Amino acid sequence: MLVDEKAFCADPQEWHEKIVDFVQPDELKKLIDLKIEENQNYTLEEIQKICQQVIHYSVKTSHGRFHNQLFGQMDPYGLAGSWITEALNTSAYTFEVAPVFSLIETEIVRKVCELCGYGQGDGIFSPGGSISNMYGVVLARYRQFPEIKSKGMFGIPPLVIFTSEESHYSFKKAAHWLGFGVDNCVMVKTNDRGQMLPEDLELKILEAKAHGKVPLFVNATAGTTVLGAFDDFNRIADVCQRHELWMHVDACLGGSALLSYKNRHLLKGLEKSDSFSWNPHKSLGAPLQCAPFLTRHAELLPQANSTAVHYLFQQDKFYDVSYDTGNKSIQCGRKIDAFKFWIMLKARGYGSFGRLVDHALDMSKLFMEKMKRRQGYRLVMEDFQYTNVCFWYVPQSMRNQKEDEKWWQKLYEVVPKVKELMIRQGTLMMGYSPLQYRNIGNFFRMVFTCFPVMQEAELDFILDEIERLADSC
Amino acid sequence: MLVDEKAFCADPQEWHEKIVDFVQPDELKKLIDLKIEENQNYTLEEIQKICQQVIHYSVKTSHGRFHNQLFGQMDPYGLAGSWITEALNTSAYTFEVAPVFSLIETEIVRKVCELCGYGQGDGIFSPGGSISNMYGVVLARYRQFPEIKSKGMFGIPPLVIFTSEESHYSFKKAAHWLGFGVDNCVMVKTNDRGQMLPEDLELKILEAKAHGKVPLFVNATAGTTVLGAFDDFNRIADVCQRHELWMHVDACLGGSALLSYKNRHLLKGLEKSDSFSWNPHKSLGAPLQCAPFLTRHAELLPQANSTAVHYLFQQDKFYDVSYDTGNKSIQCGRKIDAFKFWIMLKARGYGSFGRLVDHALDMSKLFMEKMKRRQGYRLVMEDFQYTNVCFWYVPQSMRNQKEDEKWWQKLYEVVPKVKELMIRQGTLMMGYSPLQYRNIGNFFRMVFTCFPVMQEAELDFILDEIERLADSC
Repeated sequence: MLVDEKAFCADPQEWHEKIVDFVQPDELKKLIDLKIEENQNYTLEEIQKICQQVIHYSVKTSHGRFHNQLFGQMDPYGLAGSWITEALNTSAYTFEVAPVFSLIETEIVRKVCELCGYGQGDGIFSPGGSISNMYGVVLARYRQFPEIKSKGMFGIPPLVIFTSEESHYSFKKAAHWLGFGVDNCVMVKTNDRGQMLPEDLELKILEAKAHGKVPLFVNATAGTTVLGAFDDFNRIADVCQRHELWMHVDACLGGSALLSYKNRHLLKGLEKSDSFSWNPHKSLGAPLQCAPFLTRHAELLPQANSTAVHYLFQQDKFYDVSYDTGNKSIQCGRKIDAFKFWIMLKARGYGSFGRLVDHALDMSKLFMEKMKRRQGYRLVMEDFQYTNVCFWYVPQSMRNQKEDEKWWQKLYEVVPKVKELMIRQGTLMMGYSPLQYRNIGNFFRMVFTCFPVMQEAELDFILDEIERLADSC
Repeated sequence: MLVDEKAFCADPQEWHEKIVDFVQPDELKKLIDLKIEENQNYTLEEIQKICQQVIHYSVKTSHGRFHNQLFGQMDPYGLAGSWITEALNTSAYTFEVAPVFSLIETEIVRKVCELCGYGQGDGIFSPGGSISNMYGVVLARYRQFPEIKSKGMFGIPPLVIFTSEESHYSFKKAAHWLGFGVDNCVMVKTNDRGQMLPEDLELKILEAKAHGKVPLFVNATAGTTVLGAFDDFNRIADVCQRHELWMHVDACLGGSALLSYKNRHLLKGLEKSDSFSWNPHKSLGAPLQCAPFLTRHAELLPQANSTAVHYLFQQDKFYDVSYDTGNKSIQCGRKIDAFKFWIMLKARGYGSFGRLVDHALDMSKLFMEKMKRRQGYRLVMEDFQYTNVCFWYVPQSMRNQKEDEKWWQKLYEVVPKVKELMIRQGTLMMGYSPLQYRNIGNFFRMVFTCFPVMQEAELDFILDEIERLADSC
């Protein structure tokens, strides 16, 4: 056995307990006294009771049957680490107030740069993948047009960023915030598996140039949010090199494959990128927020983001101020997000996480096989890609009928109905989504994460439960 | 007695313990085994030992003699709240996965809007003041030029933001990231107390217009980082109204005065602003990060920041999706920062925090008076303003000398030397800063926060300690 399941698994005996005791917002407002008043004199017991109520009505994301987001159960080491961080309550800007944590952040960044093939890169922990992706765009802009830092983007031809239609929405948000405009975040077409088409990327780049615009930045994705697709980084790198564009990889989900011998190949070509984002708070079980941003261009991070700040980054300190990391950041105060991840890696070794990623992928493959062997399942994508399995279940009442547009509409409507039953009964939580850019309606998205370490019997439970709920609709 | 000190104060008997056991970075790297390896098999005891080492060499920011940043001791209720949040590990984007926390965030926002005079405003918890300030700039830009969201900032005249020379550096960083350019973040002059000069603001606005630029946004500050100055919001609001500019208030430090009857007057005119940032993780003792951003323009927050996201913000859910807050955010996954603050307010009532703010201000006044009665102290600013007291101490060896430029240079150099001794001996931690825009060199900045609840004897200790260290230099 590759992984010691006892050490990793919360007790499945407890999984019959509800994931959530769902009540509608208006009703929940009556159940919990939300009001904040000027004078309140609760006893400690009363405050504990309020906390217990809050816990009771919250979703138990570390329940083994919560598969609703790209994160699942937490690693208990991660939780212990985060509690220590909370208790020490400091900020990541200077070695002065975060001596150990500064070194720990630097060590993780160094190790990740080594694993991904950046060599002497640099990086920083950000509050999440969306802001990490913004770091990538800002560095790209600074490298090509350093004068924008002082002069802004006025009076220059439009700069364009490219990302696939299947990629994360944070690139549109970044395009808005950073002044590019959403129209200058160009959506590149994908193949049936949801992978960016390099030839369409090249076409879109040429089109932008033909319209007098300046291509700047390409995002490729390692593990898209819905389908779990990995773009072909080598082919995208070729296009980027040809047009001298910054290549960023949104590996918020798929970055965890870096830790696995067996599946690292999914990231081949990542070493050619200029930067990437990774969220160990997704599949690896690190508590939210845990989001390193990495770049091969170590010098750009402080150059782009620094301002001279004399009350915080004094240059006449008595220690080597190169250990003050705040100059690389868009934030001033910055939460310590590195320690909880470091203690996870320290305790288990990163190889263990690699094997857990492998196991999650094995389970996701097995889940697909089981669906093929059962009645009523349809896969959105036949090929196995990563931890996400997207599918429909056709209730018994809908089988052996003409599968016309009306039938499909009805199937799309089954999905949110089943989801409602899941939540109301609290037995299972799973996401769903349409793929509007392909005119595909709602389907289920099951996501396998490192925690819980899934067993075959649990896969059968999930399928049985989907069938039970859908057939009762 | 206005505040129950027993309930608030960590035990001063323990304050003789070191705040930090300082070692130089290179030495610390040898003391703690930072390395992350593929295969590590530590026992639980060994991991505990590593955690103890990390704790040992970390700065104890909740030590009663840590006055190094704008934050100090934590409120124990806040810590308990943050531990609960960590254990429940969810994300703030949807009611589906954060039912109670979504309602709690909304309730805090509602209450703060009521207290500050916004009425029906809205807001969101962000990862810190710098990003909150960016929210303000983005909303200002969206209100005046909504087409920038789609088209970007290309081909339009430069937009300008105004803030005082004494204000926080995050406005320069925001100007860079958001595409304005640092040169279009215009520094407005301040008076001797560090308050923005409204007449210079008007002058700078007219100058920008004369250069063909478009004034957009004015930041006023409630409690500047170094001097603790409060700008005159009423006069600044007049200027903004005259020129139709968005008025934002960076109240990251001074926002806490909202909770105090006695000192709320410091914020008069805040109700005329369009948005403001507030960090309860600063003076109030909420654990980092706790940073609500508020705006009176409730409709703008989702309008400016939303994108249609079909896998997360499905419109066919079975509950009222207006409770999903993710559409207002620049982030996707977003840490739950509201609960720890809510439980603090719930447990004590916000009036208690108001009285703690009053007490911190009383102590800061008393601290200044004590300095005036002692030998060797010089205040950077004679007038009392807020929780920050900026000063020099002239060592005995430097008294009764000609105070020429050389003498002052020497005094400026005393400051980091004393700081070094503080840290090496671990007895006290206090910040220092120059004011380069006024050609003033290093001085100490003592900051009073709600926790610890300071007693007069402690002020004497601090002054004795400064004298002991400086006279031994």
